[in-house]
Amino acid sequence: MASKLCEMLGIEFPLLAFSHCRDVVAAVSRAGGFGVLGATAHTPESVREELKWIDDHVDGKPYGIDVLVPENLATRGEGSVSAAALVRRIPAAHREFAEHLLAGAGVTIPDDASDRYRNRAQPFDPDTALRTLEAAFEHPIRLIANALGVPPPEMIAMGRKHNVPVAALAGAREHAVRLVEAGVDIIVAQGTEAGGHCGEVSTLVLVPEVVRAVRAIRDVPVLAAGGIMTGEQMAACMAMGAAGAWTGSVWLATPESETSPVFREKMVAARSRDAVRVRSRTGKPARQLRSTWTDAWENSPDSPGALPMPFMSLVSEKSLRAVDRAAENGNDQARDMVTYFVGQGVGLIEDVRSAGQVVQDFKEGYLEAVERMNALLGD
Amino acid sequence: MASKLCEMLGIEFPLLAFSHCRDVVAAVSRAGGFGVLGATAHTPESVREELKWIDDHVDGKPYGIDVLVPENLATRGEGSVSAAALVRRIPAAHREFAEHLLAGAGVTIPDDASDRYRNRAQPFDPDTALRTLEAAFEHPIRLIANALGVPPPEMIAMGRKHNVPVAALAGAREHAVRLVEAGVDIIVAQGTEAGGHCGEVSTLVLVPEVVRAVRAIRDVPVLAAGGIMTGEQMAACMAMGAAGAWTGSVWLATPESETSPVFREKMVAARSRDAVRVRSRTGKPARQLRSTWTDAWENSPDSPGALPMPFMSLVSEKSLRAVDRAAENGNDQARDMVTYFVGQGVGLIEDVRSAGQVVQDFKEGYLEAVERMNALLGD
Repeated sequence: MASKLCEMLGIEFPLLAFSHCRDVVAAVSRAGGFGVLGATAHTPESVREELKWIDDHVDGKPYGIDVLVPENLATRGEGSVSAAALVRRIPAAHREFAEHLLAGAGVTIPDDASDRYRNRAQPFDPDTALRTLEAAFEHPIRLIANALGVPPPEMIAMGRKHNVPVAALAGAREHAVRLVEAGVDIIVAQGTEAGGHCGEVSTLVLVPEVVRAVRAIRDVPVLAAGGIMTGEQMAACMAMGAAGAWTGSVWLATPESETSPVFREKMVAARSRDAVRVRSRTGKPARQLRSTWTDAWENSPDSPGALPMPFMSLVSEKSLRAVDRAAENGNDQARDMVTYFVGQGVGLIEDVRSAGQVVQDFKEGYLEAVERMNALLGD
Repeated sequence: MASKLCEMLGIEFPLLAFSHCRDVVAAVSRAGGFGVLGATAHTPESVREELKWIDDHVDGKPYGIDVLVPENLATRGEGSVSAAALVRRIPAAHREFAEHLLAGAGVTIPDDASDRYRNRAQPFDPDTALRTLEAAFEHPIRLIANALGVPPPEMIAMGRKHNVPVAALAGAREHAVRLVEAGVDIIVAQGTEAGGHCGEVSTLVLVPEVVRAVRAIRDVPVLAAGGIMTGEQMAACMAMGAAGAWTGSVWLATPESETSPVFREKMVAARSRDAVRVRSRTGKPARQLRSTWTDAWENSPDSPGALPMPFMSLVSEKSLRAVDRAAENGNDQARDMVTYFVGQGVGLIEDVRSAGQVVQDFKEGYLEAVERMNALLGD
C-alpha cells in the first residue's frame, strides 16, 4: 500500500499491533504488520533485554515501542516516588476490600509479592518512561508512542533527534488537536470501544472527526483504534480516511500473548457487552473484561470506589496476578474473578489463532471488503 | 446499487432516513434515499393526514413508517390506559423537580398544556401503534419498522399480508438473533453512539457481529445505524457487510426538520461528547444533547431520578416543549436547557443543509470512500 504512513514506518500493510509481549511484536512485524511493544512496566534494563530478543527474531522488519506517560498523576509534583512508599499510602478501606474479595475466593497473595515493589518506581513514573525510551534507542526502533495524553517535550525531542516518528493516542477531537500542536507525527484516534484507557466517543464517529480536525492543521496520518479485530473493520476505518489501524485486544487471543489460557477461553466466550469501562483497575476509565472482581468494585455497596492513578494499580495488579495463578490452578471462584484489559471487539473473537495467522486474516478481510465495495457499484 | 435490500425497498441508494417530519421523509425519498416517518406519537387519524401529504409530495418514490412498540412498559398488563390517568400517578417529587427547574429558568407551562392528554392513550401505547400501522396501509408504504425490541406478532402478520418488509432495531447481537427468529425481514444494528434509545455496543463492533450472527440463521439484510452522518461512514459500514445505513440525527440539522432554529444552532456548536446517554427523558437509556436539563436530572443531588417508561415522558415532554418555546422567545436560561435526541455524530455537523443536499453529499462521500480504497491498493 502506497501511503505516507507506510513510508514513515517502512511497511506495506498499515496494521499496527500493540502488545506487552515480545513474541507478538516480532510475529506481527515478520508477517508484514508493525509490532509495538508496550513498555510501560519496563525499566531501561528490562527493555534492553526485550528489544535484543526482538532484534534476534524480527528478521530485520520494523517495530516500535509504546510507553504511558500520563499528564495527570495524583503524585504530580512529588518528584521521584517509590512504589513501596505509595503502597504505605493506600487507604485501609481499599486494601481491606481487596483482601476480603481474595479471601472470599480462597486466593492468597504469596508472601514475597510485595518484594517486587522494593526497588521500583511508582507505576506510570514519567522519569522511568523517559529513561526506558532512551535505552530503547540503542535498538533500531521505528516508532515511539505515548498511550495517554500529550507526550512530554523530551519525548518529542528524542524522536526528532533519532529521526523516529512520535505517535500518541487521542480519545476526543480536541485532544488530537493538542497532540498535533505539540508536534506529534502520528495520531491514534481511539474510540470508546477500545480495551484499556479510553474516552467516550465511538471509533466510527471519532475517526472522521479527528481526520477532519487534523487535516485542517497539517498533514498528519491518523490511525484508527478501538474495536478493530478484523480486516473488514480496518478497511471500514480507512474508507473514512484513517491511514491504518492500531490494534490491541485481538492479539490477546493469540498463543504468543502474555494472557493465560483461562483468560483466552473467557475471551472466546465473551460477548461485546462484557467489556466494561470502569475506573477500578488503574484509577482512570479503562475497558476490561467484566468479572466478579470488576462487579464487586463497581457495584458492591461495600466498595470503597476507585483510587486515583497511580494508587489503584498498586491495589489491583498484585491481587489480580494472584487471582490468575489461582484460576490456572483450578480455583473456579478465582476464574470468575479473572479480568484483563480488553475492548468490545472481544465479541468478535471466536477462536485462538497465531499472531501470524491474525495478520494474514486481516489482509484477506481487507481485500474482501474492498472487493465487496466494488461489487456493489457493479465495477 | 444492485442488492437484495435495494430490491426489497425499490431504491438505488440504500440510505434510510428516520424522521418525525413528513418534509424530510418526502425530500429524502425524492432525492433517491428512503424516508421513514417516525409515527410513534401518531394516531390513525393523524398518520392518514401525514401520509396523504407525503403521497402528494414524494413523486411516487417509496417510503416507510416506524412505530415504537416497547416489549416492556411499566403499565404492562393494565390494558388500555389513558395519558391523563398516568399523569395522576406521577410522584410528587418528580412533578415538583420539573416545576422547580422550569421556574428557576423563568419558564411557564401554558394552562392548556394538560388538555393534550385528555383524550390520548398513554405514550408508547401498543394498541394505538398497531391501529396507526393499519391506517398507514391505506397508503403505498414500502416498509414498517419497530424502533424498540421484538415487533408483536400482529405487526409481522400485517407486513406479510401486505407484502411489505418488517424492520426492527437491535442494539446487541442476541437481540438481533431474537428478531430474525421472530420473522423480521430487515435488521437495523444500532450502535451506542445513536441518538434516542440505544444499547452499549459501538456501531463498528455491532455491525460485523450482527452480520455474522444473522448470516448463520438466514439471509436477512442488516442496516447499520448509530453515528452515521456522512457517505464515508456509510461506506465504512457497508465495507463490513451492512446492506445500507439507517440514519436519524443528521436530518435534525436540516431546515425541513421539526427541530427549532435554537436546537439546530446547538447541534452545529456541539461536540460528539455532548451527546449523552441518560434515562431521564423516556425512562430507558436514550442519547440526547447534554443540557442544563439533563445535567439536573442526572447529577443534581436533589434529582429524584428517572421514572420508568411510559411515566417519564409525561414529565419531560410537556416541560421541554415549554422550554423550547421560551428559548425561541429569547430566554437564555431556557436555551441552556434545550435538549433533544441526538447521536454522537452531532460532532460532525458543521452547518444546516437541506435534506436533498444531505442525500447528495452522502452519495458523493460514499463514492469518494470507494475511490480512496481503490487508490490505496493502486488500482
